[in-house]
Amino acid sequence: MPTEVKGLNEECGLFGVWGTPDAAQITYFGLHALQHRGQEGAGITANDHGDLQSQRGLGLLADVFRDPARLARLTGEAAVGHVRYATAGNHGVENIQPLEFNFSDSQFALAHNGNLTNAVTLRRNLEQNGAIFHASSDSEILMHLIRRSPAANLTDQLKDALRQVHGGFAYLLLTNDRLFAALDPNGFRPLVVGKLPTGGYVVCSETCALDTVGATFIQDVHPGELLTIDDNGLKIDHYTTDTQLAICSMEYIYFARPDSDIYGVNVHSARKRMGAALAHEQPVDADIVVGVPNSSLSAATGYAEASGLPYEMGLIKNQYSSRTFIQPTQVLREQGVRMKLSAVKGVVAGKRVVLIDDSIVRGTTSRRIVKLLKDAGAKAVHLRIASPPLRFPCFYGIDIQTTKELIAAQQTIPEMCQTFGADSLGFLSEQGVIDAVGLKVGAPYGGLCMAYFNGDYPTPLYDYQAEYDEEQRQLQAKQSRGD
Amino acid sequence: MPTEVKGLNEECGLFGVWGTPDAAQITYFGLHALQHRGQEGAGITANDHGDLQSQRGLGLLADVFRDPARLARLTGEAAVGHVRYATAGNHGVENIQPLEFNFSDSQFALAHNGNLTNAVTLRRNLEQNGAIFHASSDSEILMHLIRRSPAANLTDQLKDALRQVHGGFAYLLLTNDRLFAALDPNGFRPLVVGKLPTGGYVVCSETCALDTVGATFIQDVHPGELLTIDDNGLKIDHYTTDTQLAICSMEYIYFARPDSDIYGVNVHSARKRMGAALAHEQPVDADIVVGVPNSSLSAATGYAEASGLPYEMGLIKNQYSSRTFIQPTQVLREQGVRMKLSAVKGVVAGKRVVLIDDSIVRGTTSRRIVKLLKDAGAKAVHLRIASPPLRFPCFYGIDIQTTKELIAAQQTIPEMCQTFGADSLGFLSEQGVIDAVGLKVGAPYGGLCMAYFNGDYPTPLYDYQAEYDEEQRQLQAKQSRGD
Amino acid sequence: MPTEVKGLNEECGLFGVWGTPDAAQITYFGLHALQHRGQEGAGITANDHGDLQSQRGLGLLADVFRDPARLARLTGEAAVGHVRYATAGNHGVENIQPLEFNFSDSQFALAHNGNLTNAVTLRRNLEQNGAIFHASSDSEILMHLIRRSPAANLTDQLKDALRQVHGGFAYLLLTNDRLFAALDPNGFRPLVVGKLPTGGYVVCSETCALDTVGATFIQDVHPGELLTIDDNGLKIDHYTTDTQLAICSMEYIYFARPDSDIYGVNVHSARKRMGAALAHEQPVDADIVVGVPNSSLSAATGYAEASGLPYEMGLIKNQYSSRTFIQPTQVLREQGVRMKLSAVKGVVAGKRVVLIDDSIVRGTTSRRIVKLLKDAGAKAVHLRIASPPLRFPCFYGIDIQTTKELIAAQQTIPEMCQTFGADSLGFLSEQGVIDAVGLKVGAPYGGLCMAYFNGDYPTPLYDYQAEYDEEQRQLQAKQSRGD
Amino acid sequence: MPTEVKGLNEECGLFGVWGTPDAAQITYFGLHALQHRGQEGAGITANDHGDLQSQRGLGLLADVFRDPARLARLTGEAAVGHVRYATAGNHGVENIQPLEFNFSDSQFALAHNGNLTNAVTLRRNLEQNGAIFHASSDSEILMHLIRRSPAANLTDQLKDALRQVHGGFAYLLLTNDRLFAALDPNGFRPLVVGKLPTGGYVVCSETCALDTVGATFIQDVHPGELLTIDDNGLKIDHYTTDTQLAICSMEYIYFARPDSDIYGVNVHSARKRMGAALAHEQPVDADIVVGVPNSSLSAATGYAEASGLPYEMGLIKNQYSSRTFIQPTQVLREQGVRMKLSAVKGVVAGKRVVLIDDSIVRGTTSRRIVKLLKDAGAKAVHLRIASPPLRFPCFYGIDIQTTKELIAAQQTIPEMCQTFGADSLGFLSEQGVIDAVGLKVGAPYGGLCMAYFNGDYPTPLYDYQAEYDEEQRQLQAKQSRGD
Repeated sequence: MPTEVKGLNEECGLFGVWGTPDAAQITYFGLHALQHRGQEGAGITANDHGDLQSQRGLGLLADVFRDPARLARLTGEAAVGHVRYATAGNHGVENIQPLEFNFSDSQFALAHNGNLTNAVTLRRNLEQNGAIFHASSDSEILMHLIRRSPAANLTDQLKDALRQVHGGFAYLLLTNDRLFAALDPNGFRPLVVGKLPTGGYVVCSETCALDTVGATFIQDVHPGELLTIDDNGLKIDHYTTDTQLAICSMEYIYFARPDSDIYGVNVHSARKRMGAALAHEQPVDADIVVGVPNSSLSAATGYAEASGLPYEMGLIKNQYSSRTFIQPTQVLREQGVRMKLSAVKGVVAGKRVVLIDDSIVRGTTSRRIVKLLKDAGAKAVHLRIASPPLRFPCFYGIDIQTTKELIAAQQTIPEMCQTFGADSLGFLSEQGVIDAVGLKVGAPYGGLCMAYFNGDYPTPLYDYQAEYDEEQRQLQAKQSRGD
Repeated sequence: MPTEVKGLNEECGLFGVWGTPDAAQITYFGLHALQHRGQEGAGITANDHGDLQSQRGLGLLADVFRDPARLARLTGEAAVGHVRYATAGNHGVENIQPLEFNFSDSQFALAHNGNLTNAVTLRRNLEQNGAIFHASSDSEILMHLIRRSPAANLTDQLKDALRQVHGGFAYLLLTNDRLFAALDPNGFRPLVVGKLPTGGYVVCSETCALDTVGATFIQDVHPGELLTIDDNGLKIDHYTTDTQLAICSMEYIYFARPDSDIYGVNVHSARKRMGAALAHEQPVDADIVVGVPNSSLSAATGYAEASGLPYEMGLIKNQYSSRTFIQPTQVLREQGVRMKLSAVKGVVAGKRVVLIDDSIVRGTTSRRIVKLLKDAGAKAVHLRIASPPLRFPCFYGIDIQTTKELIAAQQTIPEMCQTFGADSLGFLSEQGVIDAVGLKVGAPYGGLCMAYFNGDYPTPLYDYQAEYDEEQRQLQAKQSRGD
Repeated sequence: MPTEVKGLNEECGLFGVWGTPDAAQITYFGLHALQHRGQEGAGITANDHGDLQSQRGLGLLADVFRDPARLARLTGEAAVGHVRYATAGNHGVENIQPLEFNFSDSQFALAHNGNLTNAVTLRRNLEQNGAIFHASSDSEILMHLIRRSPAANLTDQLKDALRQVHGGFAYLLLTNDRLFAALDPNGFRPLVVGKLPTGGYVVCSETCALDTVGATFIQDVHPGELLTIDDNGLKIDHYTTDTQLAICSMEYIYFARPDSDIYGVNVHSARKRMGAALAHEQPVDADIVVGVPNSSLSAATGYAEASGLPYEMGLIKNQYSSRTFIQPTQVLREQGVRMKLSAVKGVVAGKRVVLIDDSIVRGTTSRRIVKLLKDAGAKAVHLRIASPPLRFPCFYGIDIQTTKELIAAQQTIPEMCQTFGADSLGFLSEQGVIDAVGLKVGAPYGGLCMAYFNGDYPTPLYDYQAEYDEEQRQLQAKQSRGD
Repeated sequence: MPTEVKGLNEECGLFGVWGTPDAAQITYFGLHALQHRGQEGAGITANDHGDLQSQRGLGLLADVFRDPARLARLTGEAAVGHVRYATAGNHGVENIQPLEFNFSDSQFALAHNGNLTNAVTLRRNLEQNGAIFHASSDSEILMHLIRRSPAANLTDQLKDALRQVHGGFAYLLLTNDRLFAALDPNGFRPLVVGKLPTGGYVVCSETCALDTVGATFIQDVHPGELLTIDDNGLKIDHYTTDTQLAICSMEYIYFARPDSDIYGVNVHSARKRMGAALAHEQPVDADIVVGVPNSSLSAATGYAEASGLPYEMGLIKNQYSSRTFIQPTQVLREQGVRMKLSAVKGVVAGKRVVLIDDSIVRGTTSRRIVKLLKDAGAKAVHLRIASPPLRFPCFYGIDIQTTKELIAAQQTIPEMCQTFGADSLGFLSEQGVIDAVGLKVGAPYGGLCMAYFNGDYPTPLYDYQAEYDEEQRQLQAKQSRGD
């Protein structure tokens, strides 16, 4: 589960339901299970006999719906909901989803997880043709394309629109009489469909949300699929067949909840296998294995088991930290006041520690944790990362769109080891990740997107290509200068 | 760390500091590290050059001080703080501590952790002599005794008062010119003293709070000690030498934070040894070991290591649950909607699970978790508890003052196993707990209070004796009838 | 000033400023003075060197900006703000203004007061040409028209757009480098421009907001004018010269703040003259004059002076009512519990009261107040209304779009008198209103819109015509049947 | 009604009820009507079949009970409530009333309005005999005296205690089986008793609260009376017959709500008569009469009628001001930004204004308002005060305990006139107040306490005497020096 100490953020969680009483309540509980995918905004749109009503706000789902009357107002038998991580400059209330559209004869609520690579081009073309945009995010584009499509009916207009947007996207679109769900041709983001005991259908980002609302898993939504759910039931169709699975490997490594399954692979189990593979690839002579709570605990236990070293709770995370509005002043911080993580002295003092983290973004957390353990008396700290170095930006929905913030793009592994103050540093190989996930598909990298590790993007980069090329050029120039 | 799913509650955390800038801020961060000891109220009193000012409120520390102005108003170089678990009938704002007392020529702020056994008698005597009481809790009694003591000075009055109160108590008393700390003659509750890098002193419930504020551990406060901290430094004295250590074993088993040390024993390590001992005492033929998050994870890893079975993350706790004000309706709950704990299907499906819990109070959680695992496909669930059956009430500060709510006082182990729907059930022995903690003291039960397990109370019960005897009589009558 | 007891609601207050430090702060205080024009939502967009940032939320201005950080984030030297009354079905956060529009190369913030009569037609045409709409209100339409205009520059595009929208509108449009203000050709809504001591310009709904921020009045914005304010100063232009003043008479009667001047006429003074005229038109043999607080106090003093009867404070309004979330239950209300208005027994007991109200919408308040006075011992209650009977809907920005809710459209004056339980009932004549306001313009009805009283709308009704005709037909049929 | 612009504060409002369903709800609405008597804290204690439960908090009543669950928890058929103005240094939550006392065999809730003159002495004596005090206010003293009384039963103990406290007090004391109400021997503070339609009894500070809850007035509580209300009904007794009425004249002048009656005299009517008397005593050649909203409107209409000058609404108070957390910076204030009061230019420009205020404390408001009117174009501002100069402190419950803050104790009338920038200044005479109130009692000053005007205190000052004498000595020395 993501924690606030990591500078790596998913941009959304989606939940939609059709055909059950208390649809908005169920959506609330489903979103609650997806809260780890976005904490800066939440919203629900409900459909009561064809009439759409929304509630949205900044902050955690529980804060948005702190007044129970807000949820109570969302009556009806269908709903879509969204939890959002807001990227820089997008903190406004206008970016909170589901986006609602009101036409003379129809209403739509749109929820989007992912990032489009041709948004700038699409937007510029649309603007030249009179389109207006409220928000700065990409999510309005699809609605413009739908409304401007010459196709004969809504389903065909939607298919038409979906063929024009590129990049990473999972969409839920609630209308007056239907719920649509669509996934991009590479399936970058997870999306699953399930069935409620009451007979209704649920489409959501992760299986953990199905479990939370008591729904039975039907299938993963596949790349290029368009699902339509209405009072006649679920219909699975395609808007394109030119697809190739490249599910975001970071979902397995970091984002998704450990109890979720993605394409049949349990996330916790995949992480544990990554930890085990890491133990084989990067062994170390040490006394104990400690994981960074909470996201690295699966990998740490895998490392411990495979290495035969004891797994120890050498770090404690204060479960109340996320509620605290008061932060220590710089003076107090220098005196040693800290809020979130504590080292367990009785466990680490005098020990050679293998510290397992799932991934490294900026490296600031790693440096802090190594210091925390050494201050607590650890004799040595060997940092082992259960994924390869993050060297390239993501354009499909993770909030790393520049290499500047990636330490592994700036430093070699020995340099990073020194930066962190660790006694040694090792990463899992790409093949290690691929094998640990173990999808049985005939796509490159075993069906995973590994671009952040190797720069091999499964799609053209469109609007991002020029900036990306320039950034890589500068990076190589810098490296060749030996900066 | 305690979770809200267990019906077992500590009643307080204490933090006091003398001789440092930002004393109230430091107290805030110290209390933040002790939040697990009480979530229903919090308060801080600061001493600014002899003048005492307080802020108190219902709820979590972060809620009470959500408006930063409240903390900013607490200026000065000394402070005491308190986090509180409110027992039934004591939810009022008048029970939130520190209690403040204002006299014509002096002020006091008192913070109390524990429960007195002769409070009713003391109170009745005091009332007969004109004393008035605001709150329903015991904490005002000490101040009455101090003020009515004929002794010549405040220190002697305090000692006099401390000799009259019986049961479990750790007190912090902030005056216009000093900070006192005192512990009961059995040391039922933990209390430690440390030193800040700035030269000030800290007295608090657990070492994790020392670590959080960057203080160095000096010593555990011992039974019968009275500490005085003022501008001349720390002075350690005794108000009685008739002492015998009987530290609450539930602090090691459940209450204290895993990174705290109590009498030199790390809590996580003690729990891990309990888990290992449990594996030896109660072995089982199974596939995986799963702990109830978060409090049983230490014991679960100990069990796993000792048994050679893999430790798995078969249960996930939603880290956002505590913020949620909206709960599923009964209808939704029956349909399977759940908020806090999820089973990891991919881990437990088809497996024989050893489920480790630290203790069982009412048993309702155990039943729910066994069902959760079985619904997720577990082939068998063998419940193992890393402590003996809780059969007797506590009168020293834990919120179990009647056996009615203790399932182990009402049912045999086979009956409980059936109640829980488990495939087998086993508890750790008393000796197992004592050895796992391993205090090197020459007191009964290795210096632990084991009364909740065996009814052997280290002190007379005073005001509780009659009710206790009657309850035991009824219980035996019921058991002999075979109800 | 409007009170919450009247079912008659203005839809907005506008405030814009260009060229001063602390622009958002000044906008906050300006909106605070306009809070009576809308209490259900508020927002501010600030322009910091060309970059627009917004904060918006539901509720009163003070609630939206309760966290001072929200206002502090709005840096820059220009801003627009909006307070909103939400009409039925428009309670969503997406309707709160200023609306923000983000294009690849520019940003806009739009604030709108008024109602368009051809919105449905415009919207349908725009939708047929691919336009998408977020909100259900009319305010997005202008931005679509601007962006679709073939004109050569933004000013001409805006003029082009303004010529296409009909009905009542005052617009503020903040761009990256300018602030526009425009008023409809009839000037239905008030809008004024002033100058700050710092040299910046202010455009806002009422002069009371100029006074509040220390700005000097320059002029009323006139029908058909388009103002442009930028770093070069203020420029006043026209987008049309086909204009005729028909300022909403209800602004003088009820909506505007008594300290505002509209077209040079002080609102309080106009109301007082209405009260005096009412005394001449509808005299009554009575003991005292009592006004309904707070909106009718001006008219009541006018009545008292002209009639020679003493003006008495026979009704008291609880100034804390608007904060109260807890309302009396039906049982308590029947027992006499009431929150907002109290009769002053010592004043009204045994007296024949002339009760002055500014207007009657549904009549429920009138009935309640007459009863309140009689319960307090009034010997007689003669209700006098300082405006003519409200018989027709408004389509230019007041929230009465159907005659169903207007009691004067359903009942004769004697019937109403009986409904209210009053001893007599009299209204001010249309000419009385016109003379009391006394604008020196050569337009019909002295430059006032009197359509709610006489059905003589100053513009075609466009999209509302058909529904209006049908409603009038039914009403006449009903009246001829004598229902 | 008091406004926040005046530095003069009542310290409490009381409301108690016995014998009706929804007692806490009724208390809520009663306190709501008394909110003008105290805005910094509120609390309610309910008695449910002998069991007392309380809710208290800082801020307005509506804020304390924003969560409806807090009120819902207060079940039962009796209750007492309190709204509080917190004097300096008494802002803590421990001072919010009703104070609750919990004894082994009984509970009490005490609410107090007033100030004791012998509190310091009583407190010191009690402390010497072991009494402890939580709060810094005087209100705990009564409970100590009750509990230490040797009398045979509670009623006699209470009478005994009431005879020992001196100064101004109205007490409500709720016990497990009764509600007591008592008033000091001079009746400094108002207190009334009434009957509900359901048969229950209400005791509260003002008749406006009786009206709000639908209760019928029975009588004013008289000096020295002790009322007991229980299931047998209302019993009126005396704890002393050595009484003489000296009701606080400021209740009539400023504090009480205009719709309240005190000893049969309606407050609005008394104020109007004061205004009329002021017109006769202090006539002026002027054009219009303007009152300071809201508290001076009654007096202003009285002045207008008696003088024959028109009463005009020349000042407007923003009804939303009290909710605003953001205040203008000093820079903005200098530029003219203001929040609370606005002058109506259209009314005052070019006019000679008689400005009526009810009283002057520090004078800062007067200076600001005179400037406001002159800035709005008033040709002259003649300030007329509908009460005599406030020259002496109050020790009976109004928050003026030092003459330092009273401008009339420091300056002559001509000096004040200059300070305020007014064209002339005149005050109502003492006899003018006495006649305007017109109580038909044979006590000095017509039954009013006029000590703030003339220093003639109806009781010995006890603990305040020394400080008062010294202050008067310094003042005279200063005046004789001509400072």
